[in-house]
Amino acid sequence: MSILITGTELLEPSFEDILAAHNRIEPYVHRTPVLTSNYLNKLTGAELFFKCENFQKTGAFKVRGASNAVFGLDDSAAENGVATHSSGNHAMALSYAASRRGIGCTVVMPNNAPKTKKAAVEGYGGFIVECAPSSSAREHALSMVVKQTGAEFVPPYNDLRVISGQATCTVELIEEVSNLDVIVVPIGGGGNISGATLARNSMSPDISIIAAEPEQADDAYRSFKSKTLITDDAPTTVADGLKVSMKEITWHFVSNYVNDVQTASEAQIIEAMQLTWQRMKLVIEASCAVPLAVILKNPDTYRNKRVGVIITGGNVDMDALPWH
Amino acid sequence: MSILITGTELLEPSFEDILAAHNRIEPYVHRTPVLTSNYLNKLTGAELFFKCENFQKTGAFKVRGASNAVFGLDDSAAENGVATHSSGNHAMALSYAASRRGIGCTVVMPNNAPKTKKAAVEGYGGFIVECAPSSSAREHALSMVVKQTGAEFVPPYNDLRVISGQATCTVELIEEVSNLDVIVVPIGGGGNISGATLARNSMSPDISIIAAEPEQADDAYRSFKSKTLITDDAPTTVADGLKVSMKEITWHFVSNYVNDVQTASEAQIIEAMQLTWQRMKLVIEASCAVPLAVILKNPDTYRNKRVGVIITGGNVDMDALPWH
Repeated sequence: MSILITGTELLEPSFEDILAAHNRIEPYVHRTPVLTSNYLNKLTGAELFFKCENFQKTGAFKVRGASNAVFGLDDSAAENGVATHSSGNHAMALSYAASRRGIGCTVVMPNNAPKTKKAAVEGYGGFIVECAPSSSAREHALSMVVKQTGAEFVPPYNDLRVISGQATCTVELIEEVSNLDVIVVPIGGGGNISGATLARNSMSPDISIIAAEPEQADDAYRSFKSKTLITDDAPTTVADGLKVSMKEITWHFVSNYVNDVQTASEAQIIEAMQLTWQRMKLVIEASCAVPLAVILKNPDTYRNKRVGVIITGGNVDMDALPWH
Repeated sequence: MSILITGTELLEPSFEDILAAHNRIEPYVHRTPVLTSNYLNKLTGAELFFKCENFQKTGAFKVRGASNAVFGLDDSAAENGVATHSSGNHAMALSYAASRRGIGCTVVMPNNAPKTKKAAVEGYGGFIVECAPSSSAREHALSMVVKQTGAEFVPPYNDLRVISGQATCTVELIEEVSNLDVIVVPIGGGGNISGATLARNSMSPDISIIAAEPEQADDAYRSFKSKTLITDDAPTTVADGLKVSMKEITWHFVSNYVNDVQTASEAQIIEAMQLTWQRMKLVIEASCAVPLAVILKNPDTYRNKRVGVIITGGNVDMDALPWH
């Protein structure tokens, strides 16, 4: 299916594009393990398979899409470096990938971003340009960076190169675990789940893909139910990686290929996060506790099913745990 | 070498005994993964291999020794169940192993033990007998339980069946990682490290075994340096699994076979624990951060070496993290 974006027609990445992405990024990312928990299987009545991208380079799946974009540039485009706006995992991922390629990476960040986030980006070799904390200031700063340096803008999710890279996470999960019935993926901007649908469509069309979202940031849920893209401005949720909304490209994949969207409350998300830390001994972000939270909330959807769960990342501020 | 314990002569377990223990417990325990971290390798200048017993059944290596003791009993001895005194990981491990064999497990606990510890033991099927919070009350209560029920006492560490079981952890590490130079093991009562020396002596005598201990509970360090068993009463340390002291049997192995004992401060232990959570995304107890703490403190001992690190467990009270 082709994707119509404000007058431009894009082609969906083919499965060959995704396999090419997988080959391209292979030297720079981990093939992360899939872990299980007898305790959580008993608790949910399902068989859960956790794809642990918290063990991924830079601590999150974002490095897959960022690496695919960075290493897919030809030499002349790469020479001017890459740029993005993000204060989260994509900024670290892009800095890491650029650094591995030996090119520059400029990250536009609001001047009130936490010091730890800035330090993390700089730790991976990124340069930071500060701007006022508003969307318009951010876009202006980014366009100035791109204009002055010629850097290639790599968006955090609304980009087919990035989506093809994220798809490799679900490729590995489907390769490793046979006969999955469902895969549950947290949804923020929708880059990971867009890639998941692409992998599923080619590899195992019978698997359902369910998006998991915080009730307090349920723009994807409302978009899905109303069949119209709704974007919310700055919702509040403990799952801070999921505050952003979809854009045209990710909405294309979600509206056409996702089977359902389920939501969970803040308390349910925190409980699922604690369960994962305590029972699986895994440090995971609140964002990736949302799938387990919706599984616990909707036992009838998952009972006796083989369920893949994408643990998207493990970058947590240990001084601000949500149960304190 | 034989072990002289107050007039009784014991034989050290042979390597065949340890392999028999490994076969015996295999259906009841996980073969845990060995993980690595580029970041920590760079930070230490060593190659570190973390044997992740935090992913073990009941969340700690203790289930190896407990399972070996429980499944090594003949049917008539087993029929009266097992008993122990512990408020920690051994109590959960013994409850789990007894439950898998379908026999009873009685755990003597001080009446001021935290509710969460009691709930954990009961969650694995153990029965709790409360006593006053003193050593004499505990020993009296345990002897009454044994007398009344005929249960077999399985001590937490000063026991050759338990030590043979714990040895299987190091067997797996040495099998999986070739050419180790050193293995660093936290030391409390000394059960795990005693088993580690047995495995090393048979499999790779050139590997050094170093015990890692909190400065504030450094009875093993002082014992080792003075060549005399010193036992301390109730030291204070964040590494609460390491407060107990060695007894005759574990002291035999430590005094004869351990290559060195190194200590770390409370701040160093907490820093190593945070590093492991943040960089490896692993929930580990403070006790098993002590090896990384001594490695960071003594870089010259470890630089350019291949270093095994036993992560002994991951049972952490999430509401009482030491950096809050």
